Amino acid sequence: MKSKLPQVGISIFSQMTALANEHGAINLSQGFPEFDAPDYLKSQLSHYVGEGQNQYSPSAGVPSLQAQVAALIERRYQVNVSGQEQITVTSGATEALFVAIQAIVSEGDEVIVFDPAYDSYEPAIELAGGKAVHIALTAPHYQIDWQQVAASINPNTRAIIINTPHNPTAKTLKPSDIAQLKQLLNQHDLLLISDEVYEHITFDGLPHLSALTDPVLFERAFVISSFGKTFHSTGWKMGYCVAPKQMTVEFRKIHQYVTFSSFTPAQLALADMLAEHPEHVDELSGFYQQKRDVLVKALASSRFTLLPSEGTYFLLLDYSEISDLDDVAFCRYLVEEVGVAAVPLSVFYQQASEDKVIRLCFAKENKTLEEAAKRLCQL
Amino acid sequence: MKSKLPQVGISIFSQMTALANEHGAINLSQGFPEFDAPDYLKSQLSHYVGEGQNQYSPSAGVPSLQAQVAALIERRYQVNVSGQEQITVTSGATEALFVAIQAIVSEGDEVIVFDPAYDSYEPAIELAGGKAVHIALTAPHYQIDWQQVAASINPNTRAIIINTPHNPTAKTLKPSDIAQLKQLLNQHDLLLISDEVYEHITFDGLPHLSALTDPVLFERAFVISSFGKTFHSTGWKMGYCVAPKQMTVEFRKIHQYVTFSSFTPAQLALADMLAEHPEHVDELSGFYQQKRDVLVKALASSRFTLLPSEGTYFLLLDYSEISDLDDVAFCRYLVEEVGVAAVPLSVFYQQASEDKVIRLCFAKENKTLEEAAKRLCQL
Ligand SMILES: CSCCC(=O)C(=O)O
Ligand SMILES: CSCCC(=O)C(=O)O
Repeated sequence: MKSKLPQVGISIFSQMTALANEHGAINLSQGFPEFDAPDYLKSQLSHYVGEGQNQYSPSAGVPSLQAQVAALIERRYQVNVSGQEQITVTSGATEALFVAIQAIVSEGDEVIVFDPAYDSYEPAIELAGGKAVHIALTAPHYQIDWQQVAASINPNTRAIIINTPHNPTAKTLKPSDIAQLKQLLNQHDLLLISDEVYEHITFDGLPHLSALTDPVLFERAFVISSFGKTFHSTGWKMGYCVAPKQMTVEFRKIHQYVTFSSFTPAQLALADMLAEHPEHVDELSGFYQQKRDVLVKALASSRFTLLPSEGTYFLLLDYSEISDLDDVAFCRYLVEEVGVAAVPLSVFYQQASEDKVIRLCFAKENKTLEEAAKRLCQL
Repeated sequence: MKSKLPQVGISIFSQMTALANEHGAINLSQGFPEFDAPDYLKSQLSHYVGEGQNQYSPSAGVPSLQAQVAALIERRYQVNVSGQEQITVTSGATEALFVAIQAIVSEGDEVIVFDPAYDSYEPAIELAGGKAVHIALTAPHYQIDWQQVAASINPNTRAIIINTPHNPTAKTLKPSDIAQLKQLLNQHDLLLISDEVYEHITFDGLPHLSALTDPVLFERAFVISSFGKTFHSTGWKMGYCVAPKQMTVEFRKIHQYVTFSSFTPAQLALADMLAEHPEHVDELSGFYQQKRDVLVKALASSRFTLLPSEGTYFLLLDYSEISDLDDVAFCRYLVEEVGVAAVPLSVFYQQASEDKVIRLCFAKENKTLEEAAKRLCQL
C-alpha cells in the first residue's frame, strides 16, 4: 500500500512519552497535566453518564455548551459570537485544526506556517492536497519576519496559520504582529487559522491577542481552542472552532463526516463547569505562571540558558553550553541517562535546525518539576 | 469561501432528529438506542474519571482495550489479530471510516460504493481527491450485481467499500457475495474497506461474515466497528479499525493528526466491560431480534410492505400502497402529521431513486415501537 504521508512517522509526543515510560523518566515531553481535571467537572460528567445522556449529541455540539462558550468569549474578550451559528464542538483541537484545514485547502493551495510549527499542521495540509510553506521564526527569540511572509505570498497562497500563545516556543503575538498580519490578509485576501489552544495561559500580565477580538481578522478566521488545556483534561479530547457563519457552515459539513459529534456527557459537564466556575479560567494564567516560576527558579543554577516563556505550559532550554549533541540525540541521552524526557525542537522544523534547544512541559506538580530540575542541574 | 463539499448539506440524520424534536414526533430516524448503556460500563467510566485517568491515551488506544478487542475477535470469529499492531481505537466508527479512506484514496482514485450507501463515504472520498463510483443494489431485495461491479473496475479503481450488516437496507452479505468479492479484489489488486459496525446484530441465525475471517480479504482490508452500536453508547463516539500491520501503520499516521486519541476513561471502561461481560455481545442479536419482531408484529395490520431485516437495528417499509409522495415529502408528512420520524431512502442514492421506501430504527423501547406502529397503522 502506497503511503499518503511518506515523511511521517509516529508523532514525537507519542515517541517521547513511550521512551519516558520505558526508562521510568520524569515525563516533561508531551504536553499534558500531571494534576487532574476539577472535581466539579468530573462529578458533572459522571452525573450525566449516570443520568443516561449517552447518545449522539447534535453534530455541532450540545446547545448549552455552545452558549457557554459564547458567554466565555464575551466575558473574556467583550466580543459577541453566536453559539448556534459560529461555534462547533470538536473531538479535541486536533480535530478542529484538521477540519479547518480541510475546509480551506484544495489541490495546489499553499498555506503559510511558522517553524517551529505544531506537528499536525503539515500532514493535514498535505492530505488536503496542499503544500505547507514554512517560514522560520527568527533570532533572537522567535520573531515573525513579516517581510519574508509578504515575499512568500503568491497566487496559490490560501491561508496563514498562526498560533498564539505559541507551542513550542512559548511566545505570544504582539500588537505589531497583529497589525502586519491584518494588512497582509487584507491585501491578498487570505484566510486565517488561529490556533489559540493556550489562550487562557499567558504570563506577566501579557494579554492574549485573540483573532476573535479583531473584526478584520475574525471575518476570515477559524479560531481554535481546547477544553483539554483549559480544564486539565487532555484525555477527554474536547475542543472547538469559532468562525463566521458561512465558514462555520463549511466547517460543519466536513466535521459531520470526520467524527460527526463528540462525547456527549463531557459536553454537558463542560457547559456546567463554565457556568458555575468562571474563576477556573480566570485563575489559569496565575496557576501556570507559578509553575513556570518554580521550574525557572529550580533551574537557575543549571548550565542551561532559559528562554522567556510568555504563555503555554512550555519552557525552552538552550543546552549549547552543556553538549555538542544534536537535540534529538541530547533528548535521548536525557531520557536514558538523566531520567528526564523533553522534546527536541528540531522536529518542529522543516529544514533541520542547528539550534540546541529542548522543550520542557511544566504542567506538573511542583515536586516533579523540582526533581526534574535537580537532575538537569547535575549536567 | 469556496465550498470543498458543494453538494453536501446537513446530514439527513441531523435534519430528521431536529424535525422530530421540533414536532414532538417519535424519533425512529437517526439510529441510536432509546435505552441506556449498561450500568457496569457506565460505573467503570465514572470510576476511571474519578480516579484521574483524564489525560491523553496512546494515539492508537489504551493497550487493555486493544487486547480486549483482540480477545473478542478471537472468541467471536476464531481469528488471531494483534491488538498492539493491528487495532486502532478511534473517535467513533465515523472517524475510522474517514481515516481509512484518507489512507487509501489519492487524487484521481475511484472507490466503488453500493447505493443506498451510508452518507459519510462519498464526502470522505471526495475530500481525499477521489471519486465514488456508485453501483445501485438491485431488486428484489438489494442484491449486489457482481457483474456490474466487475464492469466498473478500471485502472483508477483503488478500493471497494462493503457494509454488512447493511445500513440502511438491513441486508447481510452471503457466502456467494464473499466469493465474488474475493475474486475481484484478487484479480484487480484492490483494497477493501469493510464497514461492520452492526457486526453483532444479525437475526434468525444468519451469521455475520466478517472480512476478518477470510485471509484473502483481511490481507487488504480495513475492518471497522463501533462500540456505540454494541454498547448502546452512540454518544461516546468510540469505534475501532482492524487492519494488517502495514496498513495499520498508515492508518495511524493519519489518525494521529485527525483526532490523535479518544476519550481515555471510556476506553478503560470498555476494556473492563468486554472482559467482565462477554455475554452482552453474545446476547445482542437476540435482544434486537425481539425488538424487530415487536415492530414487525405491530405493523402487521398496516398498509406498509415490510422488507426483510436480517441485521442492524433498521427496518425498511415500502409505502407505495399508501401514498404517491416521494420519500422525502412522505417523511416530512410523517413527522409533521403522523408524529413519527423516519429516514427517506432516496437520500442514500446518488441517482435519485424512485423507490417509495423509508427506514425505521427499532433500537427503542417496546412501548415506543408500539406507539409509533399504532400511528403508522392509521395510514
Ligand atoms: C496530542 S499530543 C501533543 C500534546 C501537545 O500539544 C504537545 O506536547 O505539544
Ligand atoms: C452519526 S448519525 C447517524 C447514525 C446512523 O448510523 C444512522 O442513523 O444510520
